[in-house]
Amino acid sequence: MNELTTVKINPPYLILIGSEDDATYAKTAFGIVQWRPELVAGQFRFPGCTVDLGVPDMSIEDAAAAGVRSLLIGVAPVGGSVPDTWWAVMEAAARAGLDVVCGLHVKLTDQPGIVAAAESSGARLVDVRVPPPNLPVGNGRKRSGRRVLMVGTDCAIGKKYTALALHQAMQEAGMKATFRATGQTGIMIASQGIPIDSVVADFISGAAELLSPDNDPDHWDVVEGQGSLFHPGYSGVSLGLLHGSQPDAFVVCHDATRTRVAGWEHFSLPSLTECIELHVAAGRRTNPDIQCVGVSVNTSQVDAAERENCLQRFADETGLPCVDPLIDGCAPIVERINQQFPEKT
Amino acid sequence: MNELTTVKINPPYLILIGSEDDATYAKTAFGIVQWRPELVAGQFRFPGCTVDLGVPDMSIEDAAAAGVRSLLIGVAPVGGSVPDTWWAVMEAAARAGLDVVCGLHVKLTDQPGIVAAAESSGARLVDVRVPPPNLPVGNGRKRSGRRVLMVGTDCAIGKKYTALALHQAMQEAGMKATFRATGQTGIMIASQGIPIDSVVADFISGAAELLSPDNDPDHWDVVEGQGSLFHPGYSGVSLGLLHGSQPDAFVVCHDATRTRVAGWEHFSLPSLTECIELHVAAGRRTNPDIQCVGVSVNTSQVDAAERENCLQRFADETGLPCVDPLIDGCAPIVERINQQFPEKT
Repeated sequence: MNELTTVKINPPYLILIGSEDDATYAKTAFGIVQWRPELVAGQFRFPGCTVDLGVPDMSIEDAAAAGVRSLLIGVAPVGGSVPDTWWAVMEAAARAGLDVVCGLHVKLTDQPGIVAAAESSGARLVDVRVPPPNLPVGNGRKRSGRRVLMVGTDCAIGKKYTALALHQAMQEAGMKATFRATGQTGIMIASQGIPIDSVVADFISGAAELLSPDNDPDHWDVVEGQGSLFHPGYSGVSLGLLHGSQPDAFVVCHDATRTRVAGWEHFSLPSLTECIELHVAAGRRTNPDIQCVGVSVNTSQVDAAERENCLQRFADETGLPCVDPLIDGCAPIVERINQQFPEKT
Repeated sequence: MNELTTVKINPPYLILIGSEDDATYAKTAFGIVQWRPELVAGQFRFPGCTVDLGVPDMSIEDAAAAGVRSLLIGVAPVGGSVPDTWWAVMEAAARAGLDVVCGLHVKLTDQPGIVAAAESSGARLVDVRVPPPNLPVGNGRKRSGRRVLMVGTDCAIGKKYTALALHQAMQEAGMKATFRATGQTGIMIASQGIPIDSVVADFISGAAELLSPDNDPDHWDVVEGQGSLFHPGYSGVSLGLLHGSQPDAFVVCHDATRTRVAGWEHFSLPSLTECIELHVAAGRRTNPDIQCVGVSVNTSQVDAAERENCLQRFADETGLPCVDPLIDGCAPIVERINQQFPEKT
């Protein structure tokens, strides 16, 4: 019997940021430290590295001695090719018994030195872009517990951030909640998850079902979204995730100033109304009571003076709480959820 | 530069049906002979085989001498395990220079004897369940030519048959048309295609785009559907195929007596109206003018006396031509297409 499982990462982490001097390339590393500081034991930096996560610098030896269990590659290599110095660190970590965890475009298992080192120590090589084996086909069976899914008018529009902020706000409100990661950065933050866009097409909804299993009736899974039902490249991923998550509630993520699909500028973004309607029309197939509970808006490109008006316009259009989670947090959406789902069923 | 390509099979074919005595297990073989007799040179049968495709019996030697280019496995092995006698035939065929083509659950490339034989002769081993490499992400760019996609209220509801029958009817009407295969049997019939449900989730619509490239303005691609937007397991495949095909027209495939999703009986089938509405709502994202042009109904379980009434009820509900393609053919749908798309744009 093959176990059905998600990708799993063992904390605590040592995060490799190499010799990076541009924090934007280290977004993953900063995200982990921001959202899950308790998982991070230290950072590995080469001399001259100016990026600083604000956690202790550690060598591989220090980390192994301190009980660190995984080396995470928390930066994207500039230009895409991985420097030899990084490979050397990964190999040393694997030899010292640390799992090596990354989402690079080069496969760890294609690096003989690292493979041999991992074999010698029993360390695991974890590629967070590789789905777990033995994924099931979605069965559509109703699961216990509640689920809220982030959806978007586009890709790269704040779904992961919103999920993490909403999860945090739910916990602050004393609710039982778990963040469920569907992409590589989210998986590193949550220390588990499934890279939903990398699964074979037949298993998308099955993977989503596996990711948010039966739970307490008053527990909420806060599911990171992927793609968009309106995206000409990635809509299949989004529909499978919607059907498999069978969400009770969803939050639409939007960018106040984006009017075209990023990178696919021959497509305009849908309106919030269109976006909500299509998600309800499609989503009710596996959850007849699906409803939208809020809108998360990136207002970073909006003048400060105009921001409140902008959010008010979206609120008027949808009749829902509209927040920029980075500025306002997600408490208004949590409040809405508690209004709409008052019973601990 | 890596070529973007579909799975391709070289005719003429020798079809292995082994020692089968139940024609239902040889559906693929019969389908190829029914729809593409010109591709089939012969059949390979063991002594005692009672199934007969009505084409010449041939040995591997005969086939090689006659210029046959591919051995196709046209039967599903009873119980799932492939008899040794079949492996021996495949190995002999590969050694004789015939490509070996199958969609078995065992991989040809895991059979050392067959791999060695193929290497010795230069024959190809083609698994029609394995997508071509280097699939692109869908770009959503408008392509020239027309497309009609089969969709369904469920899986296994006649989408392939309808596509083949509609393609045939279009050709009989003197129209330019190509059948585009998205599943393994369809690929064997068309001698090319992409097994769309086996591609990685991010590339579903890109694969669909590749499958129906730019063409003459008055040319129709007749695209085999997969899954259903309403299927709890396979909806992601269907939406990616819908968006990537960007169909001008679609045909809904339905079963007159099926009321529940086959194998997922906790789900009822959608009504034809619901099915049409959701496909228009989702499909207009990549083709704003998408429209339904007909309904293909399997009436095999309906009393002969009731059949006309049954089709008439569906026609009344939808305002569209409703046919059982096995009995009525698809001429009424072709007529509707020519009414709705009168201009050779």
